[in-house]
Amino acid sequence: MPLDNPKSDFSKWYSEILLRGNIIDVRTPIKGANVILPNGYEIWEKVKEILNKEFKATNHQNAYFPLFIPEEFLTRESEHFDGFVPEVAWVTKVGDTELKEKFALRPTSETIMYHMYAQWIKSHGDLPLKINQWANIIRMDTKETRPLLRDREFQWSEAHTCHSSAEEAKLQVEESMKIYEALFDALGLSYLTLRRPPHDTFPGADYSIAYDSILPDGRALQIGTTHNLGQSFAKVFDIKFQDVDGSTKLVHQTCYGVSTRVLAALIALHGDDQGLILPPSVAPLQVAIVPIVFKGKSEGVIEACKTLEEEVKRAGYKVHADTRDNYTAGWKFAEYEMKGTPIRLEIGPRDLKNNSVLLVRRDTGEKIPVNRDELFTELKKHMDEIQAGLKKKADEILDGFIVDIDDFEKLKTRMQNERGFARVNWCGDVACAENIKDQMSSEIRGTREDVKEEPTGPCVVCGNKGVQRVYVAQAY
Amino acid sequence: MPLDNPKSDFSKWYSEILLRGNIIDVRTPIKGANVILPNGYEIWEKVKEILNKEFKATNHQNAYFPLFIPEEFLTRESEHFDGFVPEVAWVTKVGDTELKEKFALRPTSETIMYHMYAQWIKSHGDLPLKINQWANIIRMDTKETRPLLRDREFQWSEAHTCHSSAEEAKLQVEESMKIYEALFDALGLSYLTLRRPPHDTFPGADYSIAYDSILPDGRALQIGTTHNLGQSFAKVFDIKFQDVDGSTKLVHQTCYGVSTRVLAALIALHGDDQGLILPPSVAPLQVAIVPIVFKGKSEGVIEACKTLEEEVKRAGYKVHADTRDNYTAGWKFAEYEMKGTPIRLEIGPRDLKNNSVLLVRRDTGEKIPVNRDELFTELKKHMDEIQAGLKKKADEILDGFIVDIDDFEKLKTRMQNERGFARVNWCGDVACAENIKDQMSSEIRGTREDVKEEPTGPCVVCGNKGVQRVYVAQAY
Repeated sequence: MPLDNPKSDFSKWYSEILLRGNIIDVRTPIKGANVILPNGYEIWEKVKEILNKEFKATNHQNAYFPLFIPEEFLTRESEHFDGFVPEVAWVTKVGDTELKEKFALRPTSETIMYHMYAQWIKSHGDLPLKINQWANIIRMDTKETRPLLRDREFQWSEAHTCHSSAEEAKLQVEESMKIYEALFDALGLSYLTLRRPPHDTFPGADYSIAYDSILPDGRALQIGTTHNLGQSFAKVFDIKFQDVDGSTKLVHQTCYGVSTRVLAALIALHGDDQGLILPPSVAPLQVAIVPIVFKGKSEGVIEACKTLEEEVKRAGYKVHADTRDNYTAGWKFAEYEMKGTPIRLEIGPRDLKNNSVLLVRRDTGEKIPVNRDELFTELKKHMDEIQAGLKKKADEILDGFIVDIDDFEKLKTRMQNERGFARVNWCGDVACAENIKDQMSSEIRGTREDVKEEPTGPCVVCGNKGVQRVYVAQAY
Repeated sequence: MPLDNPKSDFSKWYSEILLRGNIIDVRTPIKGANVILPNGYEIWEKVKEILNKEFKATNHQNAYFPLFIPEEFLTRESEHFDGFVPEVAWVTKVGDTELKEKFALRPTSETIMYHMYAQWIKSHGDLPLKINQWANIIRMDTKETRPLLRDREFQWSEAHTCHSSAEEAKLQVEESMKIYEALFDALGLSYLTLRRPPHDTFPGADYSIAYDSILPDGRALQIGTTHNLGQSFAKVFDIKFQDVDGSTKLVHQTCYGVSTRVLAALIALHGDDQGLILPPSVAPLQVAIVPIVFKGKSEGVIEACKTLEEEVKRAGYKVHADTRDNYTAGWKFAEYEMKGTPIRLEIGPRDLKNNSVLLVRRDTGEKIPVNRDELFTELKKHMDEIQAGLKKKADEILDGFIVDIDDFEKLKTRMQNERGFARVNWCGDVACAENIKDQMSSEIRGTREDVKEEPTGPCVVCGNKGVQRVYVAQAY
């Protein structure tokens, strides 16, 4: 049974594909704390692998910090934590015993990490310090939960760095942008790199960069963020170092993170009514081999599939020959299509005779007869094309959702119907941002960080002088 | 500054090496919830890599289940959970709001996983189901915490399988023993595979196999367990399948796990007064290259180190050429010794002339001049020797701690002094086991599962007929 079309009812399609694509099961006893199923978990492990490689190449180290945050830490940095407090889970009891001091489950790890950093950093020789943590995060959002988009427990990577100068911290922000570009490219995601407006900057940060993708329903999805924290946390947590000249200074900090939300973007931007479509770079299975067997004509086919499996494996692909005889070929086709396997190879008795194999692409559905002698050239070519093609399609989706609007009523109509990103001029006044929020449940998401864009006219809300070209969108 | 000798004051040595070896930092605000430092975390990632490879080869799948366990699940399987209840952390509050139903943080995941399994398993075609989870575990032990040995938060792997017959479950237990053997071998750990006595079997399990290593202070350390759960959980969680004959049956289950405790055994069994000694198979850094530079005689040395680094890297080793000029060679030697790097290569001006390099082994301290043309043969040879040598040394430690005792007073003296494993005859009566526990704070750890051992005389406690040959030890 095919899925709905993702464009006609995205919400329904998304719910269905999570379970049928073996990504997420929401049938757990506590809402918003879901099971990551094997296919979903393997993609997440691939995300980890890609980021770990980038982190290693840029001298980041992985470490692990406690899940538990003492209450005192959260009150100490109240500017930072006020926003988190309503969604913090508190442990107040162990066994039958009430705790004298309750503690929180990390909604993010700044406080516990910086408490340690203050003990580790003594001199300029200890800098830069660049540490990443892979961890589960708890945010007991009281709003509606949605799997991978808004979970009460989710997985993420959070990197936290310390530097001896503001200039170095700024360069670190840029390094993080390159790291995430490599990840998002591997995932074939399209996105805008936006500097959030001051009123929407991470509490305690000097400025925040966010990576906004878009889902087929036209809603923006923040798939990652980078914050230049300046020295505000260093002040609160007393993270100081002795500089080369002997003077004591506060460090300059940055932090950046991505979460399992990237899987939501991956699924939504590439999938279709047959299921997932995974880019080869992150597909747990890249090639599925299916034997085509007719009664009495199966001779040699199973063996050929197994031989081919070995060859494809040796060529470096993740491959599986599905030789089960209690499932039909058609059932298997549907199964690997649902799971998003980029390429399927079919072998039947006629292929054996012709020394050929049928290559079927998941992204386009094309069926291409390939001579066995040219298989690996073809395989490589089509894998590359699928990887590039998915990114191109995602870019087209994003481009199709960006419109320039210079009239408030038009903006409202757009945000209530097609949604997407509207590029508008803004005077910089928070009141105008609030007006947009109130009247169309949308937000000013910020200015382009990767491209310089100048205002082209008056503020779309108040008509005063436009000082920034900003993007407006409804967001998850 | 060297460490104490691990044998003279193990406890002090262990505390020191954790921080100086870059493994664990305990200076966190909540006792028993520590930071895993970069060197420790990389070794743990290596453990993951080894186990994931074994799991893949045996058709296990990774998935992730929620941290949150509803209270009702814990009361439902009360036989299983009574032991855990005193150490369970309860979330009772979100933000300022008291929850109507509090929930626990997983002390283990049977209940949440089996709740899902009951929904997933319908027919014999869904079996066997073999799922592993990498997760953080919360046990708010009220006894003294000790890093990696008894933590309130720790990392682990827990695999949970379902089968259609008791015979298959039994074979699965054996498969798990092989999987762990591969891991423990890579870590160079010595251990006994013991079937725990019935009174010490995991609650709800038919029988429990445990892997007991030993630390230099003579205390046993359980580094992993496998449980044959039979059908008791299947009954409680209603995990049924339709068999080939159409009848509905309960599944047969097993579970097995290892935790960051294996790092404690790794550190304690191999380390010395210079720091960690890591087996090449899990060392984050396998080869450290240190230039020997004298004033005015450094010409070409740094370049030679960098060239060598590239060559060693291409040969497949994890290598780093430490060419920093603000640290002396001696300081670097001590640093890589502390971190446990298996092999150090030194290059000085004379080596350049002689086309040689000095190979220094971390395990034996041997300094071996090697001709550059034979370097990779020598490197391979010494790596293999270090790996095998550490295992051999660990086996000798274990062997040295096993004694046969047939007298209660002698057993008591032994357990109060040298400790280690005492092999004794036991009548099987729980009262005798209790007697041992009360009089010498030791436990009957069980019978050998890998080797058949028959009783050789009367029970060491009561003098009645001995029915089992068991191992007694004080344990962590």
